[in-house]
Amino acid sequence: MKIGIAQLNYMIGDFNGNFEKMKQAIEQAIATNADLLLFSELCVCGYPPRDFLEFNHFIKECENTIHQLATVAADKIAILVGAPSRNPSKDGKDLFNSAYFIENGKIKYIAHKTLLPTYDVFDEYRYFEPNKVFDVVDFKGKKLAITICEDIWDTGEENPLYRINPVAELAKHKPDILLNLSASPFNYQQAKKRIDVIRKNATQFQLPVFYCNGVGAQTELIFDGGSVVMDAHGNVIDEMPYFETCVRFYDTENLLPSIEQDKNATKLIHDALVCGIQNYFQKLGFKKAILGLSGGVDSALVLALAVRALGKENVLSVLMPSQFSTSHSVDDSMKLLENLGSPYKIIPIKDVYDVYEKILQPHFENKPFDVTEENLQARIRGNYLMALSNKFGYILLNTTNKSEAAVGYGTLYGDMCGGLAVLADVYKTQIYDVCHYINRDEEIIPNHILTKAPSAELRDGQKDSDSLPDYAILDKVLFQYIEQHQGPDELEAMGFDEKLITRILRMVNRNEFKRHQTPPILRVSPKAFGSGRRLPIVGKYLES
Amino acid sequence: MKIGIAQLNYMIGDFNGNFEKMKQAIEQAIATNADLLLFSELCVCGYPPRDFLEFNHFIKECENTIHQLATVAADKIAILVGAPSRNPSKDGKDLFNSAYFIENGKIKYIAHKTLLPTYDVFDEYRYFEPNKVFDVVDFKGKKLAITICEDIWDTGEENPLYRINPVAELAKHKPDILLNLSASPFNYQQAKKRIDVIRKNATQFQLPVFYCNGVGAQTELIFDGGSVVMDAHGNVIDEMPYFETCVRFYDTENLLPSIEQDKNATKLIHDALVCGIQNYFQKLGFKKAILGLSGGVDSALVLALAVRALGKENVLSVLMPSQFSTSHSVDDSMKLLENLGSPYKIIPIKDVYDVYEKILQPHFENKPFDVTEENLQARIRGNYLMALSNKFGYILLNTTNKSEAAVGYGTLYGDMCGGLAVLADVYKTQIYDVCHYINRDEEIIPNHILTKAPSAELRDGQKDSDSLPDYAILDKVLFQYIEQHQGPDELEAMGFDEKLITRILRMVNRNEFKRHQTPPILRVSPKAFGSGRRLPIVGKYLES
Repeated sequence: MKIGIAQLNYMIGDFNGNFEKMKQAIEQAIATNADLLLFSELCVCGYPPRDFLEFNHFIKECENTIHQLATVAADKIAILVGAPSRNPSKDGKDLFNSAYFIENGKIKYIAHKTLLPTYDVFDEYRYFEPNKVFDVVDFKGKKLAITICEDIWDTGEENPLYRINPVAELAKHKPDILLNLSASPFNYQQAKKRIDVIRKNATQFQLPVFYCNGVGAQTELIFDGGSVVMDAHGNVIDEMPYFETCVRFYDTENLLPSIEQDKNATKLIHDALVCGIQNYFQKLGFKKAILGLSGGVDSALVLALAVRALGKENVLSVLMPSQFSTSHSVDDSMKLLENLGSPYKIIPIKDVYDVYEKILQPHFENKPFDVTEENLQARIRGNYLMALSNKFGYILLNTTNKSEAAVGYGTLYGDMCGGLAVLADVYKTQIYDVCHYINRDEEIIPNHILTKAPSAELRDGQKDSDSLPDYAILDKVLFQYIEQHQGPDELEAMGFDEKLITRILRMVNRNEFKRHQTPPILRVSPKAFGSGRRLPIVGKYLES
Repeated sequence: MKIGIAQLNYMIGDFNGNFEKMKQAIEQAIATNADLLLFSELCVCGYPPRDFLEFNHFIKECENTIHQLATVAADKIAILVGAPSRNPSKDGKDLFNSAYFIENGKIKYIAHKTLLPTYDVFDEYRYFEPNKVFDVVDFKGKKLAITICEDIWDTGEENPLYRINPVAELAKHKPDILLNLSASPFNYQQAKKRIDVIRKNATQFQLPVFYCNGVGAQTELIFDGGSVVMDAHGNVIDEMPYFETCVRFYDTENLLPSIEQDKNATKLIHDALVCGIQNYFQKLGFKKAILGLSGGVDSALVLALAVRALGKENVLSVLMPSQFSTSHSVDDSMKLLENLGSPYKIIPIKDVYDVYEKILQPHFENKPFDVTEENLQARIRGNYLMALSNKFGYILLNTTNKSEAAVGYGTLYGDMCGGLAVLADVYKTQIYDVCHYINRDEEIIPNHILTKAPSAELRDGQKDSDSLPDYAILDKVLFQYIEQHQGPDELEAMGFDEKLITRILRMVNRNEFKRHQTPPILRVSPKAFGSGRRLPIVGKYLES
């Protein structure tokens, strides 16, 4: 049997666009005489559709698209398509997260998702009723076990999240092949985990697995593709490219092992960020980006990534020096711009700052220079960038990193402005890794940017280390608290200083109000700020 | 039997503070010789604790507090306390949402929540395993059926969300009394619905009901209290006050009907907003608010509400006229300030605006005045307000209304700044209702503010109606789309113009990116922007 996998990049709610892409893949599959073509989870409407699922009209559009696809496939090929379906029972949620098996132009079987992830960025129990019925599909003499994403992830750990293993249920029907439709978003550990999980299923149930993932970014979520074919012994037959659309075909009677792709975390983060920027702009119908180039490492990296994603002519850097800017800030930026060949403007902030100060001074009651004046500088820069963005239709790229976002080291409506926060899921120490990766063959990001001490340059001689612990330590504590869910007692047991722990955890908790107003953040870690981390703004945990 | 209900205002994660409040209520109950004291859902840690639940340390703090409370109650009284508990089974989620029945200083029974709301603002399946075991507690010769919030809401509608009715399960054990621990957030329909639901349970199962709700605001969620005692015939015995803490006691052998409270929506919205502002400031430890007073109805209402919540001396208004401000804007504002007696400043924006224009002009390539310059004015105002806020420790109140938030009629980092969006869940047409309610005895908000045509005054002679449909129609379409989940086909069937529907729905969908960066919004409707409405930023639904 010849099975195809269509790893495509969908747009949420773009039923016509998604249909056209799928139609093309079906026609290609028909031309290669494939028997079955596999698509990814909820591909018809794009994943995650979120509360659009609560609209009857949206579900009708899904159903219409399914019928159009059935017409295209006709009697020439069978297709397996992800879309919501209505729960025929009155009890329970109104929808299932489903896979439509379409043969001879008709819906032959609808398999529903059993395990509904409702953690981190996932909200599937919000919309869907879990499947409780298990059966296989007979197709050309083979029994197909159909699963959807999370269904294969309950691989019998010590502390399983679920009370049922859908693959084990399906295995009772003696299937020949395990199919999985996924929408599995990227993080720098995910590709490896995914292969491991698929292997556990393949070897435990002695089944070849055809695993189809979506690809492309949906605002903060970046789907990396990397669809997998594996034989029943756990050999990788194919791992499709990351961050690229791809349609490939496999003969089930002739599955030959191949090698896996490179899973270096820094490379993957780099590629994911480029994909995230590119897709955000493409899907919103924008071409041009703007950013403030400070001379620091964060904005340097955002610029380098944006140039890769959008083309050098489409990224405008604005240098906005103040009286507190060091000369190397402009020099380093100019060197970087020269290396990249992208356009720039220099607009100093002094004149505007002086007028603000003159006007606000009488209202400040002789209080000394403090964070107010620092924020004001950042906000003037935000105003410049937003003005140019509004006038010319640029999207402003935010350059906040994850360490800053965690502890609130940034100015709301200042450097926290933007349409997309490119680096806010990348710790400061990781930022350097990605820069070195970019510089691996030649110096693109000037070395001085990578070696000087980080500074916001909002007052004389300021260094980040005046207000923050060293990033090397800060990032370690943050990682344990945010990614690993370690509390103060566990952190102390790891040997971190008690006062330091208290200080950092308090900063993280207290600055939820700032993160609440942050632009959407490209997610590259297993625990990003944004929809995957939900915490109260008003609270008093770890305050005393 | 004498049962007490403690309707208290908790702080999320403030274990000591919550313990002290509960201890006081227990001591009061002991002094009145009560047999049992009922608290609300997850009171020990505050509701909603969100992802703090994923920290072992947080759960340990809950357990410690439970044990402290048991020591206070000792052999003098039984208490029923809401807190998370650990799932002893390895399968499934690690926690239950539980009610601890404590008698003689010991945990006698732990009842778990069966129905876990995972819609709108609720995320309970994210954290909790549903209960599957049903039993009653024997206490002083009575059988008590213990339920938690949602457990009593499955009252057999046509399309039930759940497959099980926990009260029906408990009824099999022939209980004498139905107890419910709730954390049921306010919306202007909720108090009525709550009474109806309690009545359905009371009459269907012929049980008296003791229903304890929490009270007070947790950032965007406002818990209105209104705890209820009802007899087995569905008579309201007591409905405790809205938006106030309260501890009351009832003799189960002597339940006398009383009258319900006024449920006028406008009055409730008014009271909820005052509570929301008050609690936000109190719990964050702030006293003073600042806002921009434009002369329009939205900022006028925010000022009036803030003065009620915080005291007139604690709310600073800033008037920031421009060349486009009409004279009545300042006059109307001055009249309002006089009526309220609250302090103000006048800081014109012209000088700053002129310098920005001079500096940006060469970069604007002779493009004409457009939304860029309008936004710039709003952003200068935002900068002034944030500078004063930073210098003096004010919290900036945002004055955006729900109609504006829906269609994106506002400037990011300008009038969309703020620590709390007071009115962003109140449609423009409802804003007037609340103003008239405030003016019911005397003119507090000047009549001219309520009668003139709304304008942003960002260019000459501008009116909201230049860019937006009339609010009377706009609000109707928005309500159907947002609160009622009606799509384009249903709206057309209701008689709204097709082009108008397309225009409005597109504006709503496209402006998700702005709402993503909005301050937290006080929720007063059944469907507010914020955590209860989750939609993609990048998508293409209803675009063609």
